[in-house]
Amino acid sequence: MTAPMEFWYSIGSTYTYLAVMRLPALAEQYGVEFSWRPFNVRAIMIEMDNIPFAKKPVKAAYMWRDIERRAAKFGLPLRLPIPYPLPELEQANRVAVLAAREGWCDAYTIATYRHWFVERNPAGSEPNLSASITEAGQDPARVLELANSDDGVKALATATDEAKSLGIFGSPSFVADGELFWGHDRLEDAIEWQHNLDQGNPG
Amino acid sequence: MTAPMEFWYSIGSTYTYLAVMRLPALAEQYGVEFSWRPFNVRAIMIEMDNIPFAKKPVKAAYMWRDIERRAAKFGLPLRLPIPYPLPELEQANRVAVLAAREGWCDAYTIATYRHWFVERNPAGSEPNLSASITEAGQDPARVLELANSDDGVKALATATDEAKSLGIFGSPSFVADGELFWGHDRLEDAIEWQHNLDQGNPG
Repeated sequence: MTAPMEFWYSIGSTYTYLAVMRLPALAEQYGVEFSWRPFNVRAIMIEMDNIPFAKKPVKAAYMWRDIERRAAKFGLPLRLPIPYPLPELEQANRVAVLAAREGWCDAYTIATYRHWFVERNPAGSEPNLSASITEAGQDPARVLELANSDDGVKALATATDEAKSLGIFGSPSFVADGELFWGHDRLEDAIEWQHNLDQGNPG
Repeated sequence: MTAPMEFWYSIGSTYTYLAVMRLPALAEQYGVEFSWRPFNVRAIMIEMDNIPFAKKPVKAAYMWRDIERRAAKFGLPLRLPIPYPLPELEQANRVAVLAAREGWCDAYTIATYRHWFVERNPAGSEPNLSASITEAGQDPARVLELANSDDGVKALATATDEAKSLGIFGSPSFVADGELFWGHDRLEDAIEWQHNLDQGNPG
């Protein structure tokens, strides 16, 4: 039995919506297990001077149109325009890192993206933040205290360092036994790779 | 009958290889006609300060690995590492623009990419340049004189301006009745869009 495929992502990435919302169904369909690994992609992108959309209005306009078309193709709800970029990206991901440790990361992430992409309430800020924590079955007061403690802040930085050490530079990324795939549009490739691993074939 | 789908590309773009080599078979398979439209993507990217790989070694290393995996998936030959970036990108595309006007653009582009990606001879430079023109059934002396004339230089600039006016910022791009798709990994989406146009359905 191989290790689960790692799903590395940051809440705040737009294209990540197209992976987050499809992951549960794809996991079921292909019998692939995913380990949800939130990190801070913004910190890595700033460090690498890799800023694909800010100050690039033509490319940014294309991105929204592309996401709109792809969401329609996947049958995902979407109400553009939505607030972007997130003012509280780190807050959103500090909660996600705690959620990953405690086992409710997928439910929280899906809820917060839905509030953001459908109800236009930014992830990481109220009312999205508490609503998403609650929908994941948790108490917002308890969660926010833990997520914003020194340990919570450190945990996000540690996850981000780990992502960087794997060669990750964008969100979403998928890692199957050390093999890195970047982009929601490489999800099927990653699943195929993982399948070959599960069957004992070389990639 | 709708207009052919426009295939906008620059010789010099790495991912464009994965579109160029698949296009004839896909055109046949899906009954879609493509109009090959070479332009100078480097000029547009510099103008937009949109330089995704230079000075980004982690992302560049990923790009080559991704191209290698995708070429294998599509059954395309590839011998990495290949020379990059092209020293004579404009020369390569001046010839392509002339070829598009004269009707041998696909043959020349496929030949020059094969010489570059399989035999490691950069497109736009000798021996690739004359070999690819010859393989497309043309006389290199005639072609190079025309391509490098004032008219030839102007024709590439005009094509690049037209690309920019369509909102194109990268290569390869596909335009189906004004709808823009960017990336070799959106080729199937573009074909689906064109199909709906051909059948008189709204996109």
